[in-house]
Amino acid sequence: MADIDAFVQAEADALVRELSEWCAIPSISSDPERAGDVRRSAEHLAGLMEAAGLDTEVLAADGGLPAVYGEWLGAGTDAPTITVYGHHDVQPADPLEEWATPPFEPTVRDGCLHARGASDDKGQIHFQVSAIRHLLAADGRLPVNVKFFVEGEEESGSPTIDAFLGEHADRLACDLILVSDTGMVAEDVPSLVTAMRGLIYFQVDLRTAPADLHSGSFGGAVPNAIAELVTLLAGLKDEAGRITIPGWYDDVVALTDEERANMAALPFDPDQLKAVTGVGALPGEDGYTPLERMSGRPTADVNGIWGGFSGVGTKTIIPATAHAKVSFRLVADQEPARLEPLFERWVRDRVPDHVEVSVRSYGGVKPARTPLDHPGNRAAAKAVARAFGKDPLFYREGGSGPERALSDALGAACVYLGVMLPEDRVHAPNERLLLAHYYRGVRAAAYAFEEFAKPEVATALRAPAG
Amino acid sequence: MADIDAFVQAEADALVRELSEWCAIPSISSDPERAGDVRRSAEHLAGLMEAAGLDTEVLAADGGLPAVYGEWLGAGTDAPTITVYGHHDVQPADPLEEWATPPFEPTVRDGCLHARGASDDKGQIHFQVSAIRHLLAADGRLPVNVKFFVEGEEESGSPTIDAFLGEHADRLACDLILVSDTGMVAEDVPSLVTAMRGLIYFQVDLRTAPADLHSGSFGGAVPNAIAELVTLLAGLKDEAGRITIPGWYDDVVALTDEERANMAALPFDPDQLKAVTGVGALPGEDGYTPLERMSGRPTADVNGIWGGFSGVGTKTIIPATAHAKVSFRLVADQEPARLEPLFERWVRDRVPDHVEVSVRSYGGVKPARTPLDHPGNRAAAKAVARAFGKDPLFYREGGSGPERALSDALGAACVYLGVMLPEDRVHAPNERLLLAHYYRGVRAAAYAFEEFAKPEVATALRAPAG
Repeated sequence: MADIDAFVQAEADALVRELSEWCAIPSISSDPERAGDVRRSAEHLAGLMEAAGLDTEVLAADGGLPAVYGEWLGAGTDAPTITVYGHHDVQPADPLEEWATPPFEPTVRDGCLHARGASDDKGQIHFQVSAIRHLLAADGRLPVNVKFFVEGEEESGSPTIDAFLGEHADRLACDLILVSDTGMVAEDVPSLVTAMRGLIYFQVDLRTAPADLHSGSFGGAVPNAIAELVTLLAGLKDEAGRITIPGWYDDVVALTDEERANMAALPFDPDQLKAVTGVGALPGEDGYTPLERMSGRPTADVNGIWGGFSGVGTKTIIPATAHAKVSFRLVADQEPARLEPLFERWVRDRVPDHVEVSVRSYGGVKPARTPLDHPGNRAAAKAVARAFGKDPLFYREGGSGPERALSDALGAACVYLGVMLPEDRVHAPNERLLLAHYYRGVRAAAYAFEEFAKPEVATALRAPAG
Repeated sequence: MADIDAFVQAEADALVRELSEWCAIPSISSDPERAGDVRRSAEHLAGLMEAAGLDTEVLAADGGLPAVYGEWLGAGTDAPTITVYGHHDVQPADPLEEWATPPFEPTVRDGCLHARGASDDKGQIHFQVSAIRHLLAADGRLPVNVKFFVEGEEESGSPTIDAFLGEHADRLACDLILVSDTGMVAEDVPSLVTAMRGLIYFQVDLRTAPADLHSGSFGGAVPNAIAELVTLLAGLKDEAGRITIPGWYDDVVALTDEERANMAALPFDPDQLKAVTGVGALPGEDGYTPLERMSGRPTADVNGIWGGFSGVGTKTIIPATAHAKVSFRLVADQEPARLEPLFERWVRDRVPDHVEVSVRSYGGVKPARTPLDHPGNRAAAKAVARAFGKDPLFYREGGSGPERALSDALGAACVYLGVMLPEDRVHAPNERLLLAHYYRGVRAAAYAFEEFAKPEVATALRAPAG
């Protein structure tokens, strides 16, 4: 019988060396000149997965960067099938001069592996592959059927993921998606994400005249495009911090008492958040804590605004046009396709007839949510408790990712097993992976496969959704 | 005794030829490469003024472009002294390709002189000089003492006028300033400006964090600089279109019944204003007509706004900074020095404590106003009635100029005698001067000097202000 603790202890240095070799490949998906490196990274990972005992293939959608598919399906038809999701591409590394050691020369110091991609997300794929390698080596089998889908475009917004899922949904079909691309709230607070926010994003263009007008000649009698825009945008939220668009909250699933209790138990210090962000206050929707507002509630933000004269000095114009980028984070079950027209209608209803309006949508990301009492979450929580020695807390992630697209395409819920920490400097210089957390990740992955295989969990996972 | 009608008829073509030679000089004050032309224009005008019988001198403040001073002071100490104000510099002429004939090759067609500066302002100085030339030639004297101050920087915002006035106030001292740089509302509507608006102009900078923040990670719990700015600016006016800054209207001199009756009698067509400006409505302060609002009432305009992301596509930031240019047209007796701190205080009072604010003032222009019943206005109205065959209407100009600075420096009121028309394309390609109006201008100037000399007017003008 596999002894994952002994494996991790025996192989600790070798595992980090193996991960380091992979992290040395600068698989920056947003840089077209690194396309060869992204391919090299995919092939390197495919090699690691083959060595672990998975049947592996490098695949890409038309025009997309290569993803790595892998599978071990020997657990039988009664056992659930788990698809592990993550990515092998990384963020750009600039500004390079701010790195203490070069981003693609992985270096261990202070108990951490320092490299671009160490946490996000190579280390988190690697702990899954390592767990499987040990289980297959020790037992000759896994307790569940396992598939991997490790994409190469996540840091570029997964532009071809829908095409990829359309093409390979059958192959990726599963009973549960195990997302290995999230984190924990603190080193001593084992925790599991249960939801991601969605996103819709717009550009709003207003026009009040064919050209700017002279404020001396016409000031007092003609509309001002910027004045119209600021009036519109100032009405986006009410005094209580709630979005005023009619119907906006209709589909919001309220935070449950258990979720709120979990979030209240997280070690959150408002002063620390203020210090980290440099803000002087934490304003937001009445009736919710900052943590709840940052992840469990809808938000609206003006991301950019421009119009009229912005040079040095003065220009006495009444601007003819004004523009803004406006975006909304969504929570389950707010659907982009329902909300986008609500926003557009709200804009058109609020601006006077003499204002020409254009609302352009940049497309949306759907929110994802897996209830706390989903058998996958309960099983993953047990696995984390075993690996970290402490019951985990559930929380929500405020950002947006492809998880819901995965979930919809594969007809399975997402469970999030990740070990990144807020201080890991993901997307920033000096990204790192806390090795103690990585090793616990190897154990948690192995335990998770065991937990998912337990009869009552397996039965629940195998039951048709609904 | 001078017969100004006969003079104008006899010299009609010669006057236009003389004006055309002057207009051929491209005295564009905003173009440093044209500094030589501005000087040439000043010297050319000085020659015309000398020929008319004025003692003339070209003067400039330190670092300023040349102005032309002239005087004839033979009317005696009981006669009032009138200082004619205008400018000999012109706007840039681009886009050149839109001119039917080149801007500095003055051409007569359709009863108009087409040239840059024909109306604004060489033609309007020239009719004054021509009137004086005839009066002095015919009578050997003028009914009043006359001075000229024709500056060379008006189209660049009169940057050194305060220095000039400080240096030459004694020399320019007078009982009345006769501004020769305004217009009439229509060809068949003789009319006189009685007021100019003032102007104050600000840049407002808000900061809510040291750097932009990720809207996924922090959205819902941190302030958004643009949201703070739009909320602030949306509160600048109330539902009735009134500026909400406490104390803003305290010093506003109400439009008199006579002024309102005059403005109501002007041929104003809202549809034509909409057509000219291309706007779909004429919104503004409740209780006032568009004409009143465009000239006789305070206004507030956001002239520019910027912050956050304005590129192609999307960027999910919560912006840390937001900026706006905000300006106000003022009416008598609103004083920049009193209102600037009111605006700054309003901004600081309205933004929450967690927002860092900077309010930068670009300095102000004071409003100017000469009551309709000022003896200078009544006399000028009589002169215009004689020249145009119809009693003029009084109205206000919405723009801002150096008139109040002149008035304060010289301790005299401004009376506005101008013949420009809205269709003269001032500041635009194909600027023109309607010759019929120009000729009437010569007559009106001559009559105005007569009217100012009438004993009851002269006595009133010579009385100490107060």
